[in-house]
Amino acid sequence: MKRVVILGVSGSIGMQTVDVIEQHRDQFTIVAYSVGHNIERLHELLKRWPIKEVAVAKENDAIDLALRYPDVNFYFGNEGLCHLATLAQADIVVNALVGFRGLKPTLAAIKANKHLALANKESLVAGGELVKEALRASKGILYPIDSEHSAIFQCLQGNQTSEVERLIITASGGSFRDRTREQLKNVSVEEALAHPNWKMGGRITIDSATMMNKGFEVIEAHYLFDLPYEKIDTIIHPQSIVHSFVEYRDHAVMAQLGTADMRIPIQYALTYPHRETMKQDNRLDLAALKELTFREMDFKRFPLLALAYEVGKRKGNMGAVLNGADEEAVRLFLNHEITFLEIEAAVKKAVDEVPYIASPTLAQLEQSDALARAIVRAYKKGANV
Amino acid sequence: MKRVVILGVSGSIGMQTVDVIEQHRDQFTIVAYSVGHNIERLHELLKRWPIKEVAVAKENDAIDLALRYPDVNFYFGNEGLCHLATLAQADIVVNALVGFRGLKPTLAAIKANKHLALANKESLVAGGELVKEALRASKGILYPIDSEHSAIFQCLQGNQTSEVERLIITASGGSFRDRTREQLKNVSVEEALAHPNWKMGGRITIDSATMMNKGFEVIEAHYLFDLPYEKIDTIIHPQSIVHSFVEYRDHAVMAQLGTADMRIPIQYALTYPHRETMKQDNRLDLAALKELTFREMDFKRFPLLALAYEVGKRKGNMGAVLNGADEEAVRLFLNHEITFLEIEAAVKKAVDEVPYIASPTLAQLEQSDALARAIVRAYKKGANV
Repeated sequence: MKRVVILGVSGSIGMQTVDVIEQHRDQFTIVAYSVGHNIERLHELLKRWPIKEVAVAKENDAIDLALRYPDVNFYFGNEGLCHLATLAQADIVVNALVGFRGLKPTLAAIKANKHLALANKESLVAGGELVKEALRASKGILYPIDSEHSAIFQCLQGNQTSEVERLIITASGGSFRDRTREQLKNVSVEEALAHPNWKMGGRITIDSATMMNKGFEVIEAHYLFDLPYEKIDTIIHPQSIVHSFVEYRDHAVMAQLGTADMRIPIQYALTYPHRETMKQDNRLDLAALKELTFREMDFKRFPLLALAYEVGKRKGNMGAVLNGADEEAVRLFLNHEITFLEIEAAVKKAVDEVPYIASPTLAQLEQSDALARAIVRAYKKGANV
Repeated sequence: MKRVVILGVSGSIGMQTVDVIEQHRDQFTIVAYSVGHNIERLHELLKRWPIKEVAVAKENDAIDLALRYPDVNFYFGNEGLCHLATLAQADIVVNALVGFRGLKPTLAAIKANKHLALANKESLVAGGELVKEALRASKGILYPIDSEHSAIFQCLQGNQTSEVERLIITASGGSFRDRTREQLKNVSVEEALAHPNWKMGGRITIDSATMMNKGFEVIEAHYLFDLPYEKIDTIIHPQSIVHSFVEYRDHAVMAQLGTADMRIPIQYALTYPHRETMKQDNRLDLAALKELTFREMDFKRFPLLALAYEVGKRKGNMGAVLNGADEEAVRLFLNHEITFLEIEAAVKKAVDEVPYIASPTLAQLEQSDALARAIVRAYKKGANV
């Protein structure tokens, strides 16, 4: 029986992780989870899957909850997350947190030698070098949950990374893939949130529309699979059926396909190297697909993707800056405080202005993240003058 | 340095095997090869890649050649092929023979514990049970060269056959995929030989048009991957870019893609588990593809495929009957002696009429093969009365 901790259980990935584990109660059990501010969902979860160890974001919530559930231990804040990530009674940690705050629990779980199933892409985007360093010094192992990285991971099975010619990460193109830049000027938040293929959280849906998400995935792939950026390509694939490709030096190309259901990569990250029966009705019907189409990525149309390659190659604190600026800019966009195209401008400004640090500590990454956010907020004020 | 024997070197697969080995002279050398009646090409080959051990089909050719090349040992007939398949100085045997006569050298190579790269599908279609029995008693290993089976083999790496939901073998649909049965009545040999995607020998091109080839591949897949026929599906994929799929029980689908260049699967069968750099210009350009399409297989349109499933499930001598009848019927069609649709009728007749043998010996398979051919020839006479 493998014992699982789910960080960020109330989000889309977290809840689907619960679904997967409920399908396989003979193999997995949940021993702890965290929610942020969604206390309503926490009450539901404590009925659905009662446990003894829970973390929440705020101290006040932890105190209130402790009164209501006297048999449960409540923790809060970053320390709460790190406590759960290192629980002695856990084998697997699923990090389904959104944002930069996922990095600390990732490092903590690796240092505690856990099997870490990672959906928090910011851990690698902002802290890739620290994560790699932690992995080298630990018995912890990292498994990707992102559908693209899970696909690449599956395509690499039985092969050697040294024999890879290139990874080809597929991109749906997001909500606005058929619009020109001119047509993006006055798009609304609601339009941006209408992703054609995947139901996801707000941040990642906006990041899909700007292609920032694909840029983050390029950086993630670099760290997950230890390949140079020259070997990581992207391609537009509107149907989101092929989750990514690996081309080998013998010109054979491997691909992983599936419906747009994250429970498939979540389950693989838990059961690896095995595959267990999926009870949900999410089989891919190839004959019903009719066609799969592909087209070249357009870096002019999606400048944040080009910026991500640059940032990735520069390393240092630049990933933390890129991510922090984007988190803040997307938040401002979702609050109707900046326009869609201003997300790009604000992020670019932060990347240009935050001083470069070649080998940052975690504390320096936190400072870079904070500075990037401040620059984005200042940009907003400037833009609104 | 791995030492390779190529049986059937003068054919399409054989010559491409020479290409592959010439690309990797640091790892492979050719120690022997066989041709059938193409003595012209043999002269060229003996200049291009001089060796000491050669087999040909006819005794007279062997005698003539021995006079001209006093330093080379010449063998002939089935025994010549089996001698080459078991050469002590060979590590790898590539069986690129066409037809039922490939079975004996396959069995001989396995019994001699060789690494056998198999393009001769008739070995498994006609003699699958004998081949499996030989593999169980030997250290010989079988690697598929067919593009579809190589694709499946690649998709299975790092996975367990027990976790496979189904194999999905892709079929281009052959020369006549867009014609109705009515429109097939008076097709010419030349039309049938015009395959849209692959340049191949005459037999296999006709077998693609009748879908008999896909039927053979279903039987091959059953023996290569030890899966029941219920788990082996086919799908029409006109572009021949996805060479096959494997769907797992977790609903993840793996695929292998590539250009229509057999050197990719040939090389993988030689270098497995490694992949070596392919120097030929046969990379797949995904963005240039535009689209991949799929449609359900139509068993009414292609009755020989349905017949292959039946025959495969019946086992015994039925595979040898199916193959022998088809070899003969295709030969008659290529000689303009029967029509395209009569291939199907003649093969069906042989399968209906040859007595069933549950556990045939090799000699009984040879008798069944001969009887099937005789029935097809008799059908021709009847049809022509």
